[in-house]
Amino acid sequence: MKLYDGGRAPNPRRVRIFLAEKGIKIPTEQIDLGRLQQRSDAYTAINPMQRVPALAVDDGTVIAESIAICRYFETLQPDPPLFGRGALDSALIEMWNRRAELHLLFPVASVFQHLHPAMKEMVNPQVPAWAEANKPRVFEFLNFLDGELRSRPYVAGGEYTVADITALVAVDFMRVSKMAVPESLSHVRRWHEAVSARPSAAA
Amino acid sequence: MKLYDGGRAPNPRRVRIFLAEKGIKIPTEQIDLGRLQQRSDAYTAINPMQRVPALAVDDGTVIAESIAICRYFETLQPDPPLFGRGALDSALIEMWNRRAELHLLFPVASVFQHLHPAMKEMVNPQVPAWAEANKPRVFEFLNFLDGELRSRPYVAGGEYTVADITALVAVDFMRVSKMAVPESLSHVRRWHEAVSARPSAAA
Repeated sequence: MKLYDGGRAPNPRRVRIFLAEKGIKIPTEQIDLGRLQQRSDAYTAINPMQRVPALAVDDGTVIAESIAICRYFETLQPDPPLFGRGALDSALIEMWNRRAELHLLFPVASVFQHLHPAMKEMVNPQVPAWAEANKPRVFEFLNFLDGELRSRPYVAGGEYTVADITALVAVDFMRVSKMAVPESLSHVRRWHEAVSARPSAAA
Repeated sequence: MKLYDGGRAPNPRRVRIFLAEKGIKIPTEQIDLGRLQQRSDAYTAINPMQRVPALAVDDGTVIAESIAICRYFETLQPDPPLFGRGALDSALIEMWNRRAELHLLFPVASVFQHLHPAMKEMVNPQVPAWAEANKPRVFEFLNFLDGELRSRPYVAGGEYTVADITALVAVDFMRVSKMAVPESLSHVRRWHEAVSARPSAAA
């Protein structure tokens, strides 16, 4: 088994944190995104979508998409459960993970991809107006999340889950786009401090 | 249990097709998106994200996000399996469902949302340049999918899955943005004919 990893990009980090929470260690290979190595013929043969992460399992099959990789490990090693247990619990965690993706991680990433000079070559065409349209969405969602976190410790409820991983990675990635969690959002800040203090956050 | 449904929009249709494939019938309530009913106080109390579909279960808990709702029903009624069985099979179906979302459904929806005059009030601001940037992405993915479908009947493999539902809904939604599957993509067209012929496609 081998994980194709990609440094500081948010999606590879989601998988690394997930594996750290599970206590799973596997061999990795770094794909150098700065040098567009994900577009090389060799890597395109591994993941035709030219994205990291990707996981090659022992029979050679490749699983791409961060959450697909996480779910694979969740099935192989259910403890600790990061996608929930039982129909309702699992559905609510899926809901919160998707909200954290659609309304936080993707908007944060869009601001970076469509404004940052370093992304000029990778994102063609950059649409700065799209980046600007996403900035208020980031803060709207954080505001909503702050209200939710008033009454519970983690994004999806009483336990740390994959939804916390997605939200943590998104919040940390705000920095490269010069955005920050407003001081007034005390519940988001308390949550961010707590999830950042876990050893997995260093992954 | 009650499903908050939303007419011809792609996400509510994903859930309706999923339920039809499972043979599950539940009470529904239509939310009138044309009249922005999803932004009413009453509906915002049900889903603060102001989106359809949403499922209220018997204890009053609300599950939002199409795929979270589908997964809930998959756990309640595993047959026929639409998210796969076993770690690898399920991961590959998750991967293909996400590819169909990220590289087909979302780009198709972005073209509609950011160009169509009917969306002016709902999408603020519309960013026409973002719509234009998404058009080639739709055709690139369909081209890639055509190559994949050369050697298998369905999007994720030998069986019909949730990934086919996402891709079908996306392809059908191309029409409102005046896009069509090119004649040359014979494998996509054969697949589209096959999945459209299933009774569930009428949902």
